[in-house]
Amino acid sequence: MRQTGLLIGLVFLTAAWAADGYAAKVSPATDECIGCHISISPGIVADWERSRHAETSPGEALKQSGLEKKVSSEKIPEQLLAYAVGCSECHTMNYDKHQDTFEHNGYDVHVVVTPVDCSTCHSQETEQFSRSMMAHAYGNLVHNSLYQDFMKSVNGHQTFADMTTALQPPDDQTTADSCLFCHGTKVEVKGTQTKETEFGEMTFPILSGWPNQGVGRLNPDGSRGSCAACHARHQFAIETARKPYTCSECHKGPDVPAYKVYDVSKHGNIYNSLKHQWDFKKVPWTVGKDFTTPTCAGCHMSLVVDEEGQMVAQRSHEVGDRLPWRIFGLIYAHPHPTSADVSNIKNKAGLPLPTELTGEPVGEFLIDADEQFKRRKTMQKICLACHGEGWVNGHWARFENTLRTSNAMTLTATQILSSAWKQDLVRGLPHNDNVFDDLIEKMWVEQWLFFANSTRFSSAMCGADYGVFENGRWNLSKNIQEMNDWLQIHTALRKR
Amino acid sequence: MRQTGLLIGLVFLTAAWAADGYAAKVSPATDECIGCHISISPGIVADWERSRHAETSPGEALKQSGLEKKVSSEKIPEQLLAYAVGCSECHTMNYDKHQDTFEHNGYDVHVVVTPVDCSTCHSQETEQFSRSMMAHAYGNLVHNSLYQDFMKSVNGHQTFADMTTALQPPDDQTTADSCLFCHGTKVEVKGTQTKETEFGEMTFPILSGWPNQGVGRLNPDGSRGSCAACHARHQFAIETARKPYTCSECHKGPDVPAYKVYDVSKHGNIYNSLKHQWDFKKVPWTVGKDFTTPTCAGCHMSLVVDEEGQMVAQRSHEVGDRLPWRIFGLIYAHPHPTSADVSNIKNKAGLPLPTELTGEPVGEFLIDADEQFKRRKTMQKICLACHGEGWVNGHWARFENTLRTSNAMTLTATQILSSAWKQDLVRGLPHNDNVFDDLIEKMWVEQWLFFANSTRFSSAMCGADYGVFENGRWNLSKNIQEMNDWLQIHTALRKR
Amino acid sequence: MRQTGLLIGLVFLTAAWAADGYAAKVSPATDECIGCHISISPGIVADWERSRHAETSPGEALKQSGLEKKVSSEKIPEQLLAYAVGCSECHTMNYDKHQDTFEHNGYDVHVVVTPVDCSTCHSQETEQFSRSMMAHAYGNLVHNSLYQDFMKSVNGHQTFADMTTALQPPDDQTTADSCLFCHGTKVEVKGTQTKETEFGEMTFPILSGWPNQGVGRLNPDGSRGSCAACHARHQFAIETARKPYTCSECHKGPDVPAYKVYDVSKHGNIYNSLKHQWDFKKVPWTVGKDFTTPTCAGCHMSLVVDEEGQMVAQRSHEVGDRLPWRIFGLIYAHPHPTSADVSNIKNKAGLPLPTELTGEPVGEFLIDADEQFKRRKTMQKICLACHGEGWVNGHWARFENTLRTSNAMTLTATQILSSAWKQDLVRGLPHNDNVFDDLIEKMWVEQWLFFANSTRFSSAMCGADYGVFENGRWNLSKNIQEMNDWLQIHTALRKR
Repeated sequence: MRQTGLLIGLVFLTAAWAADGYAAKVSPATDECIGCHISISPGIVADWERSRHAETSPGEALKQSGLEKKVSSEKIPEQLLAYAVGCSECHTMNYDKHQDTFEHNGYDVHVVVTPVDCSTCHSQETEQFSRSMMAHAYGNLVHNSLYQDFMKSVNGHQTFADMTTALQPPDDQTTADSCLFCHGTKVEVKGTQTKETEFGEMTFPILSGWPNQGVGRLNPDGSRGSCAACHARHQFAIETARKPYTCSECHKGPDVPAYKVYDVSKHGNIYNSLKHQWDFKKVPWTVGKDFTTPTCAGCHMSLVVDEEGQMVAQRSHEVGDRLPWRIFGLIYAHPHPTSADVSNIKNKAGLPLPTELTGEPVGEFLIDADEQFKRRKTMQKICLACHGEGWVNGHWARFENTLRTSNAMTLTATQILSSAWKQDLVRGLPHNDNVFDDLIEKMWVEQWLFFANSTRFSSAMCGADYGVFENGRWNLSKNIQEMNDWLQIHTALRKR
Repeated sequence: MRQTGLLIGLVFLTAAWAADGYAAKVSPATDECIGCHISISPGIVADWERSRHAETSPGEALKQSGLEKKVSSEKIPEQLLAYAVGCSECHTMNYDKHQDTFEHNGYDVHVVVTPVDCSTCHSQETEQFSRSMMAHAYGNLVHNSLYQDFMKSVNGHQTFADMTTALQPPDDQTTADSCLFCHGTKVEVKGTQTKETEFGEMTFPILSGWPNQGVGRLNPDGSRGSCAACHARHQFAIETARKPYTCSECHKGPDVPAYKVYDVSKHGNIYNSLKHQWDFKKVPWTVGKDFTTPTCAGCHMSLVVDEEGQMVAQRSHEVGDRLPWRIFGLIYAHPHPTSADVSNIKNKAGLPLPTELTGEPVGEFLIDADEQFKRRKTMQKICLACHGEGWVNGHWARFENTLRTSNAMTLTATQILSSAWKQDLVRGLPHNDNVFDDLIEKMWVEQWLFFANSTRFSSAMCGADYGVFENGRWNLSKNIQEMNDWLQIHTALRKR
Repeated sequence: MRQTGLLIGLVFLTAAWAADGYAAKVSPATDECIGCHISISPGIVADWERSRHAETSPGEALKQSGLEKKVSSEKIPEQLLAYAVGCSECHTMNYDKHQDTFEHNGYDVHVVVTPVDCSTCHSQETEQFSRSMMAHAYGNLVHNSLYQDFMKSVNGHQTFADMTTALQPPDDQTTADSCLFCHGTKVEVKGTQTKETEFGEMTFPILSGWPNQGVGRLNPDGSRGSCAACHARHQFAIETARKPYTCSECHKGPDVPAYKVYDVSKHGNIYNSLKHQWDFKKVPWTVGKDFTTPTCAGCHMSLVVDEEGQMVAQRSHEVGDRLPWRIFGLIYAHPHPTSADVSNIKNKAGLPLPTELTGEPVGEFLIDADEQFKRRKTMQKICLACHGEGWVNGHWARFENTLRTSNAMTLTATQILSSAWKQDLVRGLPHNDNVFDDLIEKMWVEQWLFFANSTRFSSAMCGADYGVFENGRWNLSKNIQEMNDWLQIHTALRKR
């Protein structure tokens, strides 16, 4: 019965491809995949059927010229040109480089599709992405001794006995379920397992750190990142990547409230109320015609032109290209790092931080004023597509002032914490102890990670309502009083 | 003039029904209702006109066969078969069982439509719902002595005099405006009132606990629940029930942040960016074709099939059917209760809780491992419609690990609180006092009600961004330090 | 090349207008603006092209009659009648009154379009708006000595030295980036600057407080407000104004969480799930037909009729017309102020507040019970379009009870703070000191500004889930314990 169903399914599928002039032919191998997977994992087959990958072939894609071209590789392997980009095209690609390749019904299949696989057709995007901090999200977090302490203090288990708490390191599952969910896990083959399936006995690789779609994932082919972090499988719709929800998966919490700020801004208002009029599929993306206010992608990544076809911004999967500042302060906002791999940064005090504890940027690892100027201009060109120069310059002056004032409020918090350390009220930097595990230290973390960052994102993206009472200046200000109150109480108790 | 308007309205209405082949005939009684109510409450008449109830008749609905059938009652009273399901059909149904029935223009009308009324056509859904904890949301809260103390501590009025605070119980209006808004009020007839209306003097029943659409409402016909809690009146669109906003009405706050977690997950991203392509009205709901990522209903309630018509999940209005765990910890996560009515649960210590204060589940009231296995498989079958087995098992292992670690962090908080109680720093369990009214007790509540729950919902539904900094592990960890700091300060002050 | 592009653009544009029967002719002046600005600021030109302003002319608009008429001015200057409302029509209007007028390519252009400019066609709306508190948002904040202290405590810079913190006043950029972003800045011409542009050397005015679109902005023509605060440029779509996102730009944070409450309410659920069926452009707006549940505008501003054309609510840009209470407590909820300018209010104690510190309303500045009755009835008429009288009265009784109980919980917090002041634990009112700068004072602020307000908005708009645990009664209750705990600790430390 099921076999019949499959046959009918296939016949229907073939008919569908034949009938539709735009539809691409599926390769024999992909045809075979679909034969079983239309009933094993029907959701992804049907989802893929809606995709551009199912609708066209690399050969057709290469024929498009100029800015409308969606594949950036100059040459694409001959055998791929005539077929839709289906199961087999991605999941058997580069099989010899993939540690996770396994024999599956006569094919060498791998589970984890990586940026290297995608680069077959999208080489430029992959190259740009590889230079971005996102691609290094795993190492930049995990290979930094200070951030290791931070992860331990957030995810670790705390016990209570004899009137004191103690902190145990987190297990791997917990880390994968929290920080590494977004930053990416390390996916490695840990053996194989054989099991009985609907189609007989089969053997599959066992993967560590799985499932994961984190943007900085370490893949079993040695590559970094996951395109699916933003280009959700298996439709890979450009519409999804251009809408702000993709970014919000990792940029919504109080540490990086980009989405929440956008949502409350005038841009977010216009997006939310008028997006149904827009064309989210058009490449290049014409400002005012295809969209009337930017989304995250519009300002930070997309290829944007004006109605006359003049370039407003080049496509970039290296978000840093348009960013003079790193406003996500660790612990202060600072000029953007030069290199995407920041795991080797050290400040004068020997801490793995891009600024001193007092806020001075560690110049040698950060872009200089000229590069900042260039990036600021690149971003401002997008602003200028809708706003006058006075408006744009006024906005940037105000925003960069907010970088200074929010850094200053972080410095005050750092001074209060330092006083607590100096008086041995808690153990921290001077005691070579975890600087994130005590209450006053956690208050300090909130000052820069939540409140200063939120204030800055609100300023950068004009979502003032968020930056005042939601998680911004009000909290920056109240938290200083809370930290100071803590200090007063514990100094007084100490003096008894 | 208004009479003319009414006539024109009716003529137009009749014409509309006649002209449209699908439209059902309205009964003479409903016709009479509309005659006045098109000007008395125009919004609901027009809303109803858009509904499936206005478009078809039970007789037509019964003709559909197989999974496409939308009415589940085998027999529907003869007199209803030929007409649209209009005002009179629902508001005069079972008039003799309704304490709130009153004479209204020659009809026996009742105000409050209940699950029993809906069961006339939708008997299976009503039966399933009646077995769910949602249907018992009133009693499970109100008939639990511990939760009564909790409600008092949240809603009660606090006074301040002589350097101490005191807690007064809340008034009924306040309770109806907070907890019982979602849990449901007790709606009873408290008398009648006669008033002058546009159509002369009329008499209406006076209802207690009104208005209310809480999911566990106690109705004047003795039944439990309100279908309108999720199936918003008077369009009762399946589209509304299948979209996540309905669930979010009660599952958005920090205690049960299901919607917020969904919203930040990959599923939420795909829903938000591509939902305009979906078919929210199709029954059954075909995965990949009608929808490309689950909504709340997709995983927890809907009848889901694959493109070949194979069943993925049976429809259930008893959400528990697919839930091995109750991750909404009271105070720890635990296997799902056996019975929907949990008001009689008692742990070994005599507390009306499904776990001990130390976390052990109270086995006799909870489902066993076999039942958990069955329910886990039922839910996983939905995951497997789009994800491979390695992915699904990996996810569940990680999620169930998070149940353990979040419970462990709740235990630590409970130990700190117990220490405060033992030292008589505040009055609580050992003093037979409200365990929710002092500051350290409220901190403890946040540990499990907000932070452990949020961490678990984030893990269950893959919305890691919420479970780390928004209201999850960061807070679980900081709160332990806050509780411990409170303990240190008050112990020190005591020792003076 | 660019010149050619411009020419082609213009030809295309002209053709587009000619081809489309509805499109209005652009004036020669506007034509000239577009000539350059289609490449200088392509986004706004394209956005404007989608607008009603581009589609019709005031002459055509005047021909509509009755409730469908969208312009309210009885007479519109002759020279505007035949043309689309384009760049020149708004940006050269009233040039002699505008301090920001400058010579630009032979035209007297001003940057800042103001309500006075809009009143040329929309005089009634401008007049209503001018009577609203929103139009006075700048002065009501800035000219109140108490709120000045508040702004200083939120936005000011805090330093730490010698174990104490000190508060410095904020700079102007910070204030413009926070409070005044929504309240509006003071925009004045501060000089001119000449710069090299693509089209040669040009001179532009330098504006203070720019950019800004705050609802109470002080404009360079002496007028108050910005219509663009809600009617986003340059499409000015009524769809945007009617959707809740516009209001959310300023009414989302914990101080005024109107949007968040709406979003979690049944109304918000229905809006979110079914809005794609609605007609957001129809004037007047027919309840049930054009929309099936209210948005912010629906209840507070829009012209609403029923299907028979009977008036449900008259359009008003004075939101207060439908508001008996000001539930945004400063510091208690109270009857709505009589005058939109509340900067001159003083209570008996001499504080610039509409209530005493103990909660009694300062009657002489507030509307009386008769006026409250009238406004309540106006609002209830909208409720009654979909709900029965029992439902509506029940809701309002519950809501007004919540005003009382939330005020009572504010009083308790005020008593605790007063005790701290009396014991000189912190410097406040009795010491003529800023009452917002110490920790206990900031806790007190959260009691009324965040928790009492959130509780009231949740009650008013039936979003109970927000008003309990998100930022409502739970916090009202916990905060009293936190304030009391602070008092106990500091009293004990003082006694040593």
